[in-house]
Amino acid sequence: MTNMEFRTYAHELVEWMADYLDEVEKYPVKSPVAPGEIIGRLPLHPPASGETFAMIFKDFRGTILPGMTHWQHPSFFAYFPANNSAPSILAEMLTATMGAQCMSWATSPAATELEERMMQWLGEMTGLPPSFTGVIQDTASTATLCAILTARERHTAFRANAEGLSTHPRYAVYASTETHSSIERAVKIAGLGAAALRKLPVDARFALIPDALESAIADDVSRGIEPLCAVATLGTTGSTAVDPLRRMGEICRKHGLWLHVDAAYAGTALLLPELRWMSEGIDMADSFVFNPHKWMFTNFDCSAYFVKDASLLVRTFEILPEYLKTREGDRVRNYRDWGIQLGRRFRALKLWFVIRSFGVEGLRERIRAHIALARLFAQYVEAEPDFELLAPVPLAAVCFRHHPVSQDDPTALDSMNAALLEELNRTGRVFLTHTKLNGRFALRFVASQTNVTQRHVDAAWDLIRTTARSLTSTAPV
Amino acid sequence: MTNMEFRTYAHELVEWMADYLDEVEKYPVKSPVAPGEIIGRLPLHPPASGETFAMIFKDFRGTILPGMTHWQHPSFFAYFPANNSAPSILAEMLTATMGAQCMSWATSPAATELEERMMQWLGEMTGLPPSFTGVIQDTASTATLCAILTARERHTAFRANAEGLSTHPRYAVYASTETHSSIERAVKIAGLGAAALRKLPVDARFALIPDALESAIADDVSRGIEPLCAVATLGTTGSTAVDPLRRMGEICRKHGLWLHVDAAYAGTALLLPELRWMSEGIDMADSFVFNPHKWMFTNFDCSAYFVKDASLLVRTFEILPEYLKTREGDRVRNYRDWGIQLGRRFRALKLWFVIRSFGVEGLRERIRAHIALARLFAQYVEAEPDFELLAPVPLAAVCFRHHPVSQDDPTALDSMNAALLEELNRTGRVFLTHTKLNGRFALRFVASQTNVTQRHVDAAWDLIRTTARSLTSTAPV
Repeated sequence: MTNMEFRTYAHELVEWMADYLDEVEKYPVKSPVAPGEIIGRLPLHPPASGETFAMIFKDFRGTILPGMTHWQHPSFFAYFPANNSAPSILAEMLTATMGAQCMSWATSPAATELEERMMQWLGEMTGLPPSFTGVIQDTASTATLCAILTARERHTAFRANAEGLSTHPRYAVYASTETHSSIERAVKIAGLGAAALRKLPVDARFALIPDALESAIADDVSRGIEPLCAVATLGTTGSTAVDPLRRMGEICRKHGLWLHVDAAYAGTALLLPELRWMSEGIDMADSFVFNPHKWMFTNFDCSAYFVKDASLLVRTFEILPEYLKTREGDRVRNYRDWGIQLGRRFRALKLWFVIRSFGVEGLRERIRAHIALARLFAQYVEAEPDFELLAPVPLAAVCFRHHPVSQDDPTALDSMNAALLEELNRTGRVFLTHTKLNGRFALRFVASQTNVTQRHVDAAWDLIRTTARSLTSTAPV
Repeated sequence: MTNMEFRTYAHELVEWMADYLDEVEKYPVKSPVAPGEIIGRLPLHPPASGETFAMIFKDFRGTILPGMTHWQHPSFFAYFPANNSAPSILAEMLTATMGAQCMSWATSPAATELEERMMQWLGEMTGLPPSFTGVIQDTASTATLCAILTARERHTAFRANAEGLSTHPRYAVYASTETHSSIERAVKIAGLGAAALRKLPVDARFALIPDALESAIADDVSRGIEPLCAVATLGTTGSTAVDPLRRMGEICRKHGLWLHVDAAYAGTALLLPELRWMSEGIDMADSFVFNPHKWMFTNFDCSAYFVKDASLLVRTFEILPEYLKTREGDRVRNYRDWGIQLGRRFRALKLWFVIRSFGVEGLRERIRAHIALARLFAQYVEAEPDFELLAPVPLAAVCFRHHPVSQDDPTALDSMNAALLEELNRTGRVFLTHTKLNGRFALRFVASQTNVTQRHVDAAWDLIRTTARSLTSTAPV
């Protein structure tokens, strides 16, 4: 493909892209295809000769598009969002064109230095103490793994890295039962074993109970197990519960534990001064992660990881073979030593475009609107006698279920709501997911998609109410 | 930014992008900025109100661009390339617009199924036995970490994952002195300790000596250390040396070791039947990785990881919290359990666009041309009495140095060549990097950038020769 052809096709794609953004609501939110349907349409073997772009693009529209779940559909209420936005897409176009690999300062100074500044901006925007230093990771899973590894190395004075864990005592990591699955994965990767993870009980609001942390630590110490690290979650994946950060920080400090804060989704809400109560005590944390790629309108992947002592992070990962040495040496940051991967994309550019295009107030406005929509939805739920909330709504996620007054069998309620969820998603008009809270099947309604408005929330609620009642063939009371 | 504005700005960017591809040679390959120069121009604080795109784009051109090292410049001869190409950029535009997060089949069926098919295509294209199953990882660093973790779990029957390594014996991992730094990083992350890594001697061609592997294993076994895994490199980072795969495979099989094959750069060359000698014995490997984002014209990041037994990989990483359960259950692939990260971008699309647009023969043609250019460059080096090759040239990387006949002091030669490298890169007309081979400073000339032609190689050679002689003020003989 010549550059001249590229120019033509890229303009053609821009028309499609802008149309897509205009018309995304015409697609079913969740792809209705059956397993194997798409791959069955893809040739078994690669073509020997090049094909025309017209053919490739036609197949994209005809074969791939029907198999896409549309994460940018305003009626995407599932999981947590992975939002993009117009300025973020524009940045990705430039990033892809320059194709810079930003492992070291020398391999693209502007990428390194823009990343440093953007992390300072994000720290300020979320109210982090200026003592924190940031680096972009791909996902919160990776950032959490970095935190646990750095905790391991600080605790062992870098002997685990040097000699391995086989001669070491057992270590323990603490989090709540509501903690994200990536914590367990990280504990396993780091060689600590899933058995090292203490899943501590939560209170009625699904937040970790500090006394449980205190006594779990005491229990481990008494058994010769060394407490390593605790993970506080701001905004759990199930119900966006907020762990008591200051209390956890005090306990961690007292016992010498690393405190990692996982605010993957909720971190963006710290842009709002009225929600800073969540991070009260953050000065006691050792590391903090949130994902601009979730709720801050920045294309996946872009995870903002902050540490209090960057030298510990770098010392955990640093490797300097001859072929990576550059003449600037220690005078510059080489982000290749700040995480798992050596290679790095230029991810700071989209943050820069997004923050400047929205402005901090513009971002706040949109986040506030999402939270207001979730509260409105929660009111809708509460106003109906045959629906109920299953968790508080501190942010923009609502956990609820259909619960006709005549039905009190827990198993029947679970299957009824599972059937409701399947039926809702089958319509293509909304996409919701579920969790379990206190063992009960709960529908999750997350009102955080970039372009969600009251119209979408109202339509979703109408659909949910009507579908639920038609499935159970019951009147509301 | 409204969608209508997006349409306008995106067209504007396309003009810039196509111009950039046309005119990339007008930029200095390696950015000439000094440390701190870019960040000094970036405001300390984020803007409260949104700014116009005209302003943002102007700053991109004025502030960021001068700080970029241009990896897509045909005279980028540094490191290994991170190539893009026109069809790959077009795919990235679509990927960014749809913004799908492809962790599970349900979160975008087409992404999962296209990935499955693309991995089949790549397996066929590189001549892998059909028993291998593929998954896209971000980088070879991550893929190698996956390999070492899976080796650890297979060896311990998943007890390391369950209970941690503290009660385990010591394990050993084997690779050559020329192995990539990511192996050591992975060994440390996995809790095995850097001391577990045996860096085995290489022969005159910088390839691992099989007898050294055999005796290192025997030595470890005699000391009660359990051999876990060996890493064979096809195309080392220093000099693109090729480890003897079949011999290593036989030894690994005999002693029950996992054999991981790191072909990050060289894997693309396996598209050429005449280079399949490199992978002779691949049927004995347990895992294999190569990076289409290096030499196969596919935007970073895109690393193709293949395993012989996918169930071991999945069992190493699998985690299934309630909120990730989908109704399809085990009937579909959920790539979130095939690696470190939970979240995943839609990376198969750019592979599809690239392979179809070039066609397999088109890709082969370009790779063959690169190898021919490297051989031509090697001939240039050999033809001059004051230059010398420092390693064989099996692929498209040439390791060489300036060596005036009058100069035989090793330290002086090292500094002379370091000075030459700095002077060459300072011109902005080429970007080369270095390594050390047998302790000697070697310049690396990698002729693998998507658009490199003989004109660029000839110009580079003229510059290198002239600069070297002007620096030493010596005649060629």
